[in-house]
Amino acid sequence: MTDSFSARRWTLQQRPDGIPTPDCFMLEDVTLGPVQDGWAIAEMSHISIDPGMRSRLSGDSYAAVMAIGDTVESAGIGTIVASASDKLAVGDLVMTGSGWVSHAHLPAKAFVKLDPALFQGPLTQTAAIGILGIPGMTAYFGLLDLGAPDKGGDMKAGETVLVSSAAGTVGATTGQIAKLKGLRAVGIAGSKEKCDWLLEIGFDAAINYKDAAPLKEQIKAACPDGVDIYLDNVGGEMLDTAISCMNQNGRLIISGAVSEYNRAQPVGIRNTLDFISKRLRMEGLVVFDYARAFPKAQMEMAGWIMAGDLVYREEIIDGLENAPAAFAALFDGSPVFGRRIVKVK
Amino acid sequence: MTDSFSARRWTLQQRPDGIPTPDCFMLEDVTLGPVQDGWAIAEMSHISIDPGMRSRLSGDSYAAVMAIGDTVESAGIGTIVASASDKLAVGDLVMTGSGWVSHAHLPAKAFVKLDPALFQGPLTQTAAIGILGIPGMTAYFGLLDLGAPDKGGDMKAGETVLVSSAAGTVGATTGQIAKLKGLRAVGIAGSKEKCDWLLEIGFDAAINYKDAAPLKEQIKAACPDGVDIYLDNVGGEMLDTAISCMNQNGRLIISGAVSEYNRAQPVGIRNTLDFISKRLRMEGLVVFDYARAFPKAQMEMAGWIMAGDLVYREEIIDGLENAPAAFAALFDGSPVFGRRIVKVK
Repeated sequence: MTDSFSARRWTLQQRPDGIPTPDCFMLEDVTLGPVQDGWAIAEMSHISIDPGMRSRLSGDSYAAVMAIGDTVESAGIGTIVASASDKLAVGDLVMTGSGWVSHAHLPAKAFVKLDPALFQGPLTQTAAIGILGIPGMTAYFGLLDLGAPDKGGDMKAGETVLVSSAAGTVGATTGQIAKLKGLRAVGIAGSKEKCDWLLEIGFDAAINYKDAAPLKEQIKAACPDGVDIYLDNVGGEMLDTAISCMNQNGRLIISGAVSEYNRAQPVGIRNTLDFISKRLRMEGLVVFDYARAFPKAQMEMAGWIMAGDLVYREEIIDGLENAPAAFAALFDGSPVFGRRIVKVK
Repeated sequence: MTDSFSARRWTLQQRPDGIPTPDCFMLEDVTLGPVQDGWAIAEMSHISIDPGMRSRLSGDSYAAVMAIGDTVESAGIGTIVASASDKLAVGDLVMTGSGWVSHAHLPAKAFVKLDPALFQGPLTQTAAIGILGIPGMTAYFGLLDLGAPDKGGDMKAGETVLVSSAAGTVGATTGQIAKLKGLRAVGIAGSKEKCDWLLEIGFDAAINYKDAAPLKEQIKAACPDGVDIYLDNVGGEMLDTAISCMNQNGRLIISGAVSEYNRAQPVGIRNTLDFISKRLRMEGLVVFDYARAFPKAQMEMAGWIMAGDLVYREEIIDGLENAPAAFAALFDGSPVFGRRIVKVK
């Protein structure tokens, strides 16, 4: 067994001013090992590129802000190459919060063992850090817990769900779960290609926000009975427009704010009076609060995927060295379609 | 028994542009009676002046907007002077949604009979349309239902409640109920006199937002452990500042937006990213949703009032003819202290 490993990791070099550029990050060579007692080392095959990570790069009072020099955070999957724990053996397939790294040296309990036999047919291993990972859990608990008329209660069939960034994994999964629960699903995305795909996977309607017609008119046309649940990944004007289209007792779930992350001064929302006149509820989602319920949700979603009722797309980018560019491109208007994942080598 | 009554009522004459002026309303002479079968006529002694009514004067898509020519809405108390229902007798003390009128001719079920014997000591009859009416119910259900960590669950003792317009009936009642439930209560008001009164009735701290120090600094100083619950009657910048001071899992209850009602373009809020980073929940309160639970809440609050644990202030203005001026002055910066009520004659 090799004692140590030549590894690479991306660290935060400077805080971005606006859209993050690749030079905010630095690729470092490190040597990992020998493995600590009770720990293991995994060689990563894939790591995730997460838009939500943007909010942790900027320095303000929020506790989860990364320090300069920290390894950039992400999920990853890999294979154990060294272990000093009886919980893990060399060759085990694992998932972990590795960050943008080639190898992860962590306590055994930081690794989740994955059964390779589970990943077959439409279910890829990368699903573990995509639709069965944080984005999928965000869709599942955002819609089914925060979106329910009584928080934690049952969904009301026939209600209309609107979701922004609908061709991303959170959005596309939200719409498909909505359909499985008997709701009407409408998505907002930024291209005809994405809208066509949303209709293909079962959305009742899809709105291209780049079309000439005002977004509000498009929402009204696509949601003739109004909007009962809005799952927002965008923030700003789009959130504000959605608020104006909500029905009485509407629920707004804030799971991301991709339009706001890079602004010095956020745009925010103006339609706060609607909260009184329409009894609206708006709630921020931190999906880790549901961590103990993940396994059950993952099992249910894996079942839907195997049955062909829940589909997903991934964009695989080759090479750990390309992680910062793949991340920056999430914010510069380049089309993103599904979950963005880096294949480490 | 007199067959008919000479009555007066205020109707909406034109929609206000900004701060409502008295000429938005018209005083009409009408003759009521003879009383319809199953109905009754009450001669009103007092009617309420409600800031929340402002939002129903402006024409947009919201269903509850008043039509031109409608009687201005409010609560009122009075005495039955004619009845064609076996539920009500001449001389009965009643409360009803009379509007700004001298007499109300309504179906018997629109009147709530009040027992005059209940109103003694510190509990005035006008409390029925004040602290035991809509403003008091707003404080009670806003704080205890929407403000609870789990909606509808129990309050967590020791948490900090911040309330704006704290010297108004909603605000002052919220703070006092908070203290009765073992919470820390902090109020925001617009004068030293109001702040002194808040401390006198048991608030832990009071903030004068007209002081030179920035509001955020004042909130941080008055709430050293942060803010867990914010009950907002103001909206706009004050709401936004409160959001920035909220703790993890904070709850924001929107019960009014006095700073926003008269603006052509609302100011709104910018700090929507805080909803994700701090798992905030913001919910609009429509107190009528709790109507079936009012009697129990009123009984509990009447008990607190009789025991001296809950106090309130009223500003009584003489003469129905002065209702529009009393209403307009809610918005022009004149000091308002407690519940504003018009003594009809």
